Amino acid sequence: MTTTAPTSVAAYAAPSAKAPLERTTVPRRPVGEHDVLIDIKYAGICHSDIHQARDGWGEGIFPMVPGHEIAGVVAEVGPGVTKYAVGDHVGVGCFVDSCRECAYCRQGLEQFCTQGMTGTYNALDKNGEPTYGGYSTHLVVDENYAVRIPDGLALDIAAPLLCAGITLYSPLRHWNAGPGKKVAVVGLGGLGHMGVKIAHALGAEVTVLSQSLRKKDDGLRLGADHYYATSDPATFETLAGTFDLIVSTVSAPLNMDAYMGLLKVDGAFVNVGAPEEPNALNMFSLINGRKTLAGSMIGGIAETQEMLDFCAAHGLGSEIEVIRAEQINEAYERVLASDVRYRFVIDTATI
Amino acid sequence: MTTTAPTSVAAYAAPSAKAPLERTTVPRRPVGEHDVLIDIKYAGICHSDIHQARDGWGEGIFPMVPGHEIAGVVAEVGPGVTKYAVGDHVGVGCFVDSCRECAYCRQGLEQFCTQGMTGTYNALDKNGEPTYGGYSTHLVVDENYAVRIPDGLALDIAAPLLCAGITLYSPLRHWNAGPGKKVAVVGLGGLGHMGVKIAHALGAEVTVLSQSLRKKDDGLRLGADHYYATSDPATFETLAGTFDLIVSTVSAPLNMDAYMGLLKVDGAFVNVGAPEEPNALNMFSLINGRKTLAGSMIGGIAETQEMLDFCAAHGLGSEIEVIRAEQINEAYERVLASDVRYRFVIDTATI
Repeated sequence: MTTTAPTSVAAYAAPSAKAPLERTTVPRRPVGEHDVLIDIKYAGICHSDIHQARDGWGEGIFPMVPGHEIAGVVAEVGPGVTKYAVGDHVGVGCFVDSCRECAYCRQGLEQFCTQGMTGTYNALDKNGEPTYGGYSTHLVVDENYAVRIPDGLALDIAAPLLCAGITLYSPLRHWNAGPGKKVAVVGLGGLGHMGVKIAHALGAEVTVLSQSLRKKDDGLRLGADHYYATSDPATFETLAGTFDLIVSTVSAPLNMDAYMGLLKVDGAFVNVGAPEEPNALNMFSLINGRKTLAGSMIGGIAETQEMLDFCAAHGLGSEIEVIRAEQINEAYERVLASDVRYRFVIDTATI
Repeated sequence: MTTTAPTSVAAYAAPSAKAPLERTTVPRRPVGEHDVLIDIKYAGICHSDIHQARDGWGEGIFPMVPGHEIAGVVAEVGPGVTKYAVGDHVGVGCFVDSCRECAYCRQGLEQFCTQGMTGTYNALDKNGEPTYGGYSTHLVVDENYAVRIPDGLALDIAAPLLCAGITLYSPLRHWNAGPGKKVAVVGLGGLGHMGVKIAHALGAEVTVLSQSLRKKDDGLRLGADHYYATSDPATFETLAGTFDLIVSTVSAPLNMDAYMGLLKVDGAFVNVGAPEEPNALNMFSLINGRKTLAGSMIGGIAETQEMLDFCAAHGLGSEIEVIRAEQINEAYERVLASDVRYRFVIDTATI
């Protein structure tokens, strides 16, 4: 790596839509004035990696190197870098740039940049070059789009926090999860398990709403106070009018009217996972009780840093299964079968 | 009227589902310890009166005397009454009782009483007796469920505030309409025209979103800064990302995803009118921009009083067409044809 020319780095990429991922090399830009070169140590596997690698939303850029849950060590800094030094532990999440000028960027809501944030992979950067994600040995990123991973937070369990962690932390904070509040997390997967941990650490009374009771022991161990099966219609009677906040991490379509019935007056149901297909909702389910249906998407850079600091202070990391790079395709199948507790993390030394 | 025995009073009632309203008499309870007897002067005609009189939701109680936009003068007070005296101007809105003990009643959110509020008509009171509404000469109501109509607010233009006014005031206040905020009101009818007036008086920049430009002159006169036709697809491009708050008063199904596109990040779309049928919504319309879809339903007693005081202070009343009681059935047809600017008010002296 030099500061003057692009370099090829090892990576795992989907060569085309729906083809298995395989080892390859991809270019990384030279380390610019404000860039840091990150020696990636771990990269989490997010469900959306699979979706994008298989071109589920169309318009994928191939070859595609997924990965937006990135934890590593700073290996080189550009001359203008002030935030990080060689050896610092840093993370990169779902985006690596934004316009920096719009009202939302200025408010620290870069994820809602009016120009569109630049995705960590499967996007084009300001120079029109494709971005490549974290299933790779190295990454060059502007220091303003990296966050510090505090001492005491191991890089492997920190990696998934960069997407799964912030995706739950942000709505839990925005909708005031905390002492005296009853919070439900729908779905106990990669996102949901972080929701349980964070909501519990914030002081809320936490309920898991999962399709079955299969993971009940896990849920209670992770910090849930209660655990109910949504396949049991009695759940919706027992818990009617109970919650201040429900955060749904599932992408299966839900009976929204039934879930709205679980909220208190002024309660909010927030989607962070979302079904592809439109959901049906009777507006009376919102009117009667001044209820809110909302969405939330990751978080800004400052809030992501706040989340990492919070997790470090409370000893929170993701529950992970570390895999070797050659297991990525197998791991994808297991994610699709919900056979992971709760996040696969790639040891990038094996790429 | 006495304090000891029920009395018959003149009223207009639907004798059965879908039958025209006709003159009749209905009983009013004796004036109890905490009751006031109201000499009704005016009663507004709300769209939901028609719906209920025609048994649109089923389970209607007949004969039915509609009317929950009631303005009148106190004619008698029970011995325990402390808030009102004979001659005071008072109003009654959508409910005449609630449990008074639940968390919501104690917070002044009687409209969300866990036991269910007692509707001003088409409901059963605590003694199991049917309630009869404002299309009548007199009403007996607990003083705690009446509100004061301030001096300077004429009773005829005040009557519709008891439903249409509070239905808009409450969400505009709850979602912080005010200076620096861009607020849209969808639909310029009985509800919408009050939304425009109140949002303008609160200091917001107000846009009307109406199907056509037919009422544009009215909208601007009532306080709107802008007026757009939703039948023109260009409206949704021009106004993309514009509003902090959209309050929809229409009961026709809307393309919710298109309306969500009009909101800023963190914007809210609030239904106060609502279609009978479920609406389809893509959750990504909420996720991208942390947007809120919510509902709101009238307001509590304290907030209704606050609204009346606000309207009096700002010289706001409903735009009305006063009718005689025998015109009620004709007025119903005109409401259904959207042929009213903007509220029919019955002069109850003609009953």
